[in-house]
Amino acid sequence: MNRGRFIAFEGAEGVGKTTQIRLLASSLEEAGVPSVVTREPGGTSIGEGIRDLVLRSAGPVPPETELLLILAARAAFVREVVAPSLAAGKWVLSDRFDLSTFAYQGHGRGIDLGRIERLNAYAAGGVAPDLYVVLDLAADEGMARQMRAGKSPDRFESEGAAFHRAVRTGYLELAESLDRAVLVPADGSPEAVGERIRREIVARFPETLRGGAV
Amino acid sequence: MNRGRFIAFEGAEGVGKTTQIRLLASSLEEAGVPSVVTREPGGTSIGEGIRDLVLRSAGPVPPETELLLILAARAAFVREVVAPSLAAGKWVLSDRFDLSTFAYQGHGRGIDLGRIERLNAYAAGGVAPDLYVVLDLAADEGMARQMRAGKSPDRFESEGAAFHRAVRTGYLELAESLDRAVLVPADGSPEAVGERIRREIVARFPETLRGGAV
Repeated sequence: MNRGRFIAFEGAEGVGKTTQIRLLASSLEEAGVPSVVTREPGGTSIGEGIRDLVLRSAGPVPPETELLLILAARAAFVREVVAPSLAAGKWVLSDRFDLSTFAYQGHGRGIDLGRIERLNAYAAGGVAPDLYVVLDLAADEGMARQMRAGKSPDRFESEGAAFHRAVRTGYLELAESLDRAVLVPADGSPEAVGERIRREIVARFPETLRGGAV
Repeated sequence: MNRGRFIAFEGAEGVGKTTQIRLLASSLEEAGVPSVVTREPGGTSIGEGIRDLVLRSAGPVPPETELLLILAARAAFVREVVAPSLAAGKWVLSDRFDLSTFAYQGHGRGIDLGRIERLNAYAAGGVAPDLYVVLDLAADEGMARQMRAGKSPDRFESEGAAFHRAVRTGYLELAESLDRAVLVPADGSPEAVGERIRREIVARFPETLRGGAV
């Protein structure tokens, strides 16, 4: 049995990560490749509890607390979900992973990136994605999509335009600097974006996807 | 206005930390010294949410997650409770602080103590107790007190005797190694233990306590 692949979908609110994960999971299923769809922070029982605190806490949350909470969830996520799934031959499709920590807590909140890297290395315990799919939209377009979706905004969605611009800049720089990241424009129909992602997956993992069956 | 003092009460379950904090707070009040009674993990809105996850989570909680959660709560605790209270001239009496992290997550769970020290330095942001009062009882006596109290055991109380012995050994070593820690035998009546603690406080902070008014 081959080890599975770990694909992290990254990008700001409203860029379509959830939709694209669902499309890729369907394609994988048609190709006979088992996958696990999950998310961060979350994916485990304790992680979902942490997610709720991070996104919905009413009281003050210092940036250091926010970062450590997200890393606490990650430590459970990699050990309870990612590593066992990959070992069982499943692909792991995650809505966010550590690129979001660098973008939000680093570029957004201003925590030193080297600091985040050291703390993240401890939490992630050596588990890293085989590919980051970084979906990109102009920051205001993503937020507009979210507002049309009509959900009540969480602690991040409630931040101002400067925060969201810093986060987007962060993602663009991160996507540029990492070999294992691909920047995918998220404008156009879900199917058009899905086709861009499928081409990247086929190009990078042709053996698993049987020469383009996906 | 003088800066307040930060006193951390440390020690295993059932050693009487809560009772002793209440006794000291009363003595301080009689001496005209304002104090804040608080606890860790907890003391803030986000911290109490974290406490609940750490103590009561039903699913698996890897040691790394447990440690990062406790540090996340600490980062809010020092910034939202300890630092502002000390700056306002109040004493802070806390049921646990970082000695418990070294004892439980280090000696108990086996996480490297140097690792904890580095992570804790980030979370605590330079805030440290003026005195650690380490209450000590034979491990089985503390647990027996807890069981008599009839509460349903939390994730730590549910651990076996070997874990609790390792935690106690940790506290004894930590109390021995730190100048700002005092080991106080917790056997005898609450009043007798309280008298031992008062003597230590008077000896260490005579100026604040007006030569023994406490």
